[in-house]
Amino acid sequence: MIVSALLTSVGINTGLCVLLLSFYSVLRKQPDNVYVYAPRRVAEEQAKREGPFSLERLVPSPGWIVRAWRLSEDEFLSAAGFDAFVFLRIFIFSIRIFSIAGIIGVFVLLPLNYTGNQLRTVDWADIPNQSLDLFTIANVQDGSKRLWVHFCAVYLISGAACCLLYLEYKGIAEKRFSYFNSSPPQPNHFTILVRGIPKSDQHSMSETVEEFFTLYHPSTYFSHQMVYHSNRVQSLMHEAEKLYKRILHLKTKPRLQRKSHREGFLGLFGAKVDPVDLYTKKLEDVEENVKLEQSTFYQNEKELPAAFVSFRSRYGAAMASQLVQSSNPLLWVTEPAPEPSDIYWPFLSAPYIQLWISKFVVVVAVFFLTILFLVPVTFVQGLTQLTELESFLPFLKKVLKLTIVSDIITGYLPSLILQMFQYFVPPIMLLFSAMRGHISNSGKMKSACIMVLSFTIWNVFFATVLSGSVISQINTFLSDPKDIPRQLAVVVPGQATFFITYVLTSGWTGLSLEIARIFPLIGNFFIRHFSNITEDADCAPSFPYHRDIPKVLLFGLLGFTYSLLAPLIMPFLLVYFFVGYIFYRNQMLKVYSPRFESAGQFWPIVHNCTIFSLVFMQIIAIGIFGVKKVPFASGWVIPMTVITLLFNDYCRKRFLPIFNRYPAEILIKRDGEDERNPQMMASFLDSLVNAYRDPALQPVQYSLDESGNRTSLLSFS
Amino acid sequence: MIVSALLTSVGINTGLCVLLLSFYSVLRKQPDNVYVYAPRRVAEEQAKREGPFSLERLVPSPGWIVRAWRLSEDEFLSAAGFDAFVFLRIFIFSIRIFSIAGIIGVFVLLPLNYTGNQLRTVDWADIPNQSLDLFTIANVQDGSKRLWVHFCAVYLISGAACCLLYLEYKGIAEKRFSYFNSSPPQPNHFTILVRGIPKSDQHSMSETVEEFFTLYHPSTYFSHQMVYHSNRVQSLMHEAEKLYKRILHLKTKPRLQRKSHREGFLGLFGAKVDPVDLYTKKLEDVEENVKLEQSTFYQNEKELPAAFVSFRSRYGAAMASQLVQSSNPLLWVTEPAPEPSDIYWPFLSAPYIQLWISKFVVVVAVFFLTILFLVPVTFVQGLTQLTELESFLPFLKKVLKLTIVSDIITGYLPSLILQMFQYFVPPIMLLFSAMRGHISNSGKMKSACIMVLSFTIWNVFFATVLSGSVISQINTFLSDPKDIPRQLAVVVPGQATFFITYVLTSGWTGLSLEIARIFPLIGNFFIRHFSNITEDADCAPSFPYHRDIPKVLLFGLLGFTYSLLAPLIMPFLLVYFFVGYIFYRNQMLKVYSPRFESAGQFWPIVHNCTIFSLVFMQIIAIGIFGVKKVPFASGWVIPMTVITLLFNDYCRKRFLPIFNRYPAEILIKRDGEDERNPQMMASFLDSLVNAYRDPALQPVQYSLDESGNRTSLLSFS
Repeated sequence: MIVSALLTSVGINTGLCVLLLSFYSVLRKQPDNVYVYAPRRVAEEQAKREGPFSLERLVPSPGWIVRAWRLSEDEFLSAAGFDAFVFLRIFIFSIRIFSIAGIIGVFVLLPLNYTGNQLRTVDWADIPNQSLDLFTIANVQDGSKRLWVHFCAVYLISGAACCLLYLEYKGIAEKRFSYFNSSPPQPNHFTILVRGIPKSDQHSMSETVEEFFTLYHPSTYFSHQMVYHSNRVQSLMHEAEKLYKRILHLKTKPRLQRKSHREGFLGLFGAKVDPVDLYTKKLEDVEENVKLEQSTFYQNEKELPAAFVSFRSRYGAAMASQLVQSSNPLLWVTEPAPEPSDIYWPFLSAPYIQLWISKFVVVVAVFFLTILFLVPVTFVQGLTQLTELESFLPFLKKVLKLTIVSDIITGYLPSLILQMFQYFVPPIMLLFSAMRGHISNSGKMKSACIMVLSFTIWNVFFATVLSGSVISQINTFLSDPKDIPRQLAVVVPGQATFFITYVLTSGWTGLSLEIARIFPLIGNFFIRHFSNITEDADCAPSFPYHRDIPKVLLFGLLGFTYSLLAPLIMPFLLVYFFVGYIFYRNQMLKVYSPRFESAGQFWPIVHNCTIFSLVFMQIIAIGIFGVKKVPFASGWVIPMTVITLLFNDYCRKRFLPIFNRYPAEILIKRDGEDERNPQMMASFLDSLVNAYRDPALQPVQYSLDESGNRTSLLSFS
Repeated sequence: MIVSALLTSVGINTGLCVLLLSFYSVLRKQPDNVYVYAPRRVAEEQAKREGPFSLERLVPSPGWIVRAWRLSEDEFLSAAGFDAFVFLRIFIFSIRIFSIAGIIGVFVLLPLNYTGNQLRTVDWADIPNQSLDLFTIANVQDGSKRLWVHFCAVYLISGAACCLLYLEYKGIAEKRFSYFNSSPPQPNHFTILVRGIPKSDQHSMSETVEEFFTLYHPSTYFSHQMVYHSNRVQSLMHEAEKLYKRILHLKTKPRLQRKSHREGFLGLFGAKVDPVDLYTKKLEDVEENVKLEQSTFYQNEKELPAAFVSFRSRYGAAMASQLVQSSNPLLWVTEPAPEPSDIYWPFLSAPYIQLWISKFVVVVAVFFLTILFLVPVTFVQGLTQLTELESFLPFLKKVLKLTIVSDIITGYLPSLILQMFQYFVPPIMLLFSAMRGHISNSGKMKSACIMVLSFTIWNVFFATVLSGSVISQINTFLSDPKDIPRQLAVVVPGQATFFITYVLTSGWTGLSLEIARIFPLIGNFFIRHFSNITEDADCAPSFPYHRDIPKVLLFGLLGFTYSLLAPLIMPFLLVYFFVGYIFYRNQMLKVYSPRFESAGQFWPIVHNCTIFSLVFMQIIAIGIFGVKKVPFASGWVIPMTVITLLFNDYCRKRFLPIFNRYPAEILIKRDGEDERNPQMMASFLDSLVNAYRDPALQPVQYSLDESGNRTSLLSFS
């Protein structure tokens, strides 16, 4: 790839971004789109749907950027939640470390590389037609003393990264504690999930639970809620809710505008009736069914061997959840309960064998997904080497000779295709993750995040780097593990140009697509005009951490890897992180609504991945110094790798335990503070009794008003 | 190897065993040897040193065997301790499973193999000169239907092994609890070790500890003992004790028999003095030094950031040890305390970085030890193929032609050499293990046990199996992992005869050597006749679990592997386990004295190793059915492997947690029982205060009697 192709790519992407942003700036002001661009505001009733028309609504304005930027960190934290805060810390960390790496790269390494003469001497007059390889380390003369500057850069960047990582980890840990201390009492801190409750002939399971905990935890045990076989009731209730919403929506429209339905088969035959009446009747039927189910529910004793057990203090709950309770560890299995809204009910009481099989199936499925994904990657890889495509599709030869076409194909298309395929992976992984038996949505998302991350690093980064013949390369690797650094040093720099364009397309354009929300926009348009479902007031989506964290971390990996090899990538990356920081801030505040709070549990994933990137950079450095015939420098990188791993081990001991569990000190302090406020605690404990009540046990009463009359719904119209 | 060579080996080893046992039967009756053959009895003052001479003392008698056999399991448990009990359960488990495997092997598989005709048709008249290979699976015709019998044997043996393993694990877990419930209160159940106590400017560390635990564990905290920099004092005290014992020994002899010493340089010059006076003077000097050190000790505040903290209840201690205490998990690091006699002081307060480096060094050292050990293994391996030795040392050609010589060399020498080298490994591994920073002797021994076990399996089993060219074989393995079963199926049966002789030498003769205690016998002889140190009354050694568990488990691995391939090994193995059971029972009761009690923590190691052996057997079965051209049988072994792994996973969840920690249920019950006996608890808590007192803080007063006079020692004479 030559400089002009890169510039084409930059041009296209910048144009696209500007276009998308202008669209966004205009569209976001249209009241009709408020459900797309500010659903969170709607949910919090801060945004009005209707407003007077004004010309200003048609002029793009950057006010939203300023507003997203201006908010202080603490304000953002309280508005968007802790997980969103942690997500944005990835950007801040990246901006910091890549500013350092960028300055070193652009002002020190880049001139050194460009003035080298390993590839050819520089022709200053014809920069646009020069290969981008001239800007990489490949252009430094073999054995040159200049490489010691690169060596110093490895140490500087690694050292700076470790320091910044430590500060981030520490800062987030402290914030996590202060968040814990400042938030009101939360049911999940007082509650544990107990599984494997033994069956007894004399008692119901509920009585067994009561007996066990009053016997062994007499001073702290408070109450418990059994889990029931309730899938059927829950689906019925869900149906009732949907019907209810539909009716409400219809009632907002005047009677004549409602499309009337026929009563008979598929709505094609029978007398025309008002849809409100039709749905109201349906709703009543469903509610009747729910009541019927609920009654059998109590009669049949559909208790599952699982319960949520609440304690009077956080420390009591922590004790019960962290100590093995029973002399048979498969009984009375305890673990901290998720937030009530975070519970993922399907696996709450799955038996051991089912979980084992699910896990096995997931492993196999992920394996096959990974293999399957190699197909598009290999194809994309072919595109960057145009000649291959020419021999594959000879009739394209003429078209490909056009500069602009070849520029677009090599500079833009490959990473676009890759990005499209990547679009499907996170939902699939979330599905796999759901099958693995998590009890909470956040746990599910966390595990999906790890899977998507490894998938991304392996399939997007490595499979691309190892070019088409992945399998044969792996065989070479296995046969001589010592040779891996050298081989990586040969193949990784070759893909520098591909990844620069990847930053432009997947990074820049990806961000603009994220903020313009094209798909939800189209969906919203259709819903508004062609459907009779109301826009849901609670429709603010939760943020897909499992999709976006791996995406951002991949750019981090690219940054570390190429900071040394091809520093030209750094400015583009920095732009990405800056813009991303502002854009995601905006989205977190306006679009996404936190459904649950893992209180920073995503950070250890980020930390580990960054350590991986650092070590990977060092391994490549070892290889490249070997290839460049400075074996001495190559050997001296190893101590830095050891230090990095030692640092990681230290962090794992220093921070990881407090991300998994709150320490006793913190819990006891907080419990003590609460004790000084008995009134608040009393009212909290009152609410705790029913916090983990199975949703299937709640009464459904959409069609009846409080006095039991059927008229309540109709009185709306 | 042919049948007659095997018989020679059996003959030699049986002869050796009978000889050694006769020696033992006689020698053990000589009062002079009581410190060798019954040091435990001496320590418990059950054995008398002197007795009247009688002819009976010179006649071998098997009474000890009967006595060792007769003891019931519970009596043995209370006499020899829980770890010894667990060790003997390995033999019981092995006898059970290999009885089943042996019956299948000898009465079903062996005839099938021998009547096969893959190698050659059987010549019934000339059995002594037939190759042992005729008795292995190699002699079954390729593709024969007979192999389905072998296939059934795999399922039967695996199934039986899993059932027995489950029963053992369950039985030992139950015994562990009943042992816990029946034993008197033990200090280690009430105490935790706290490390990483933060430094404070205002307080001493002791005050900090007191403050922390009264604040956060007010209801359960009882007392604490700091750990001090006391290496120097301890070594001085050790010296004083040694001198004291020497003086006591000298005083038992009449004054004239004592060898007088000279006062001057190296005892060569100066006036002759009575050794008692000399040593008494030395002892006084040492004691003076101890007192001096102890005084600086308090002045200098040599407190280390570690303490033993005791609680009023077992549950309180468990809570404090299992929950993360501080918001900085590197401070207030808690873990269960070992028994007072089990503490390994050197690493009690080693800083983080030191532990990390030690671990690293140990890993490197173990790696090199493994490599180095390949030298003798390769050499031994060469011996089993005599032709190689002939070409190596041509002048031996004539000697080697003699049947008896070649029989001895192929049948006996190789495994003897291997055994000798193996003799050095356990102490080295214990040393490595000590460097890894364990806080207890039992932890040290457990980790050494695991290291010796992997070393044994790898170096004795695999290195032998893969014959001389280990490295090249590994390369073949790596290049095609799918092919491993097939390759193992080719090489493992080839070593069947070697391992049969290994069972005879290392197993049978090893057992006899163990019971005859040749080295301690010689040592004792020299001490008695040529030294002036008294036999130590507390000299009963502790049992080297790290040496003997891997040895026994290796025979288990051999049993599983060859039960299918070469069932001829089974009778020899069964004899080994039977005899071993009785011999070790005898040794546990008379020789070894339990210094500490891990309460069955060795069993999970045994369990995991047995699962490994089972899976290994199944992998070889997969390979051998492939080689023998019954691919269908080969494929159907895989489900059994999956079931075995699933079973192991189940056991890990079901039993492992209760071997690591006692569950809350058990602790709370036991605490409740103790509360009903307040008097006993009060006296126990009194003793608990000083249970973990640093030994360096005890006063030394060997040379003074209670009233402070110097005469006490001299009054003995």
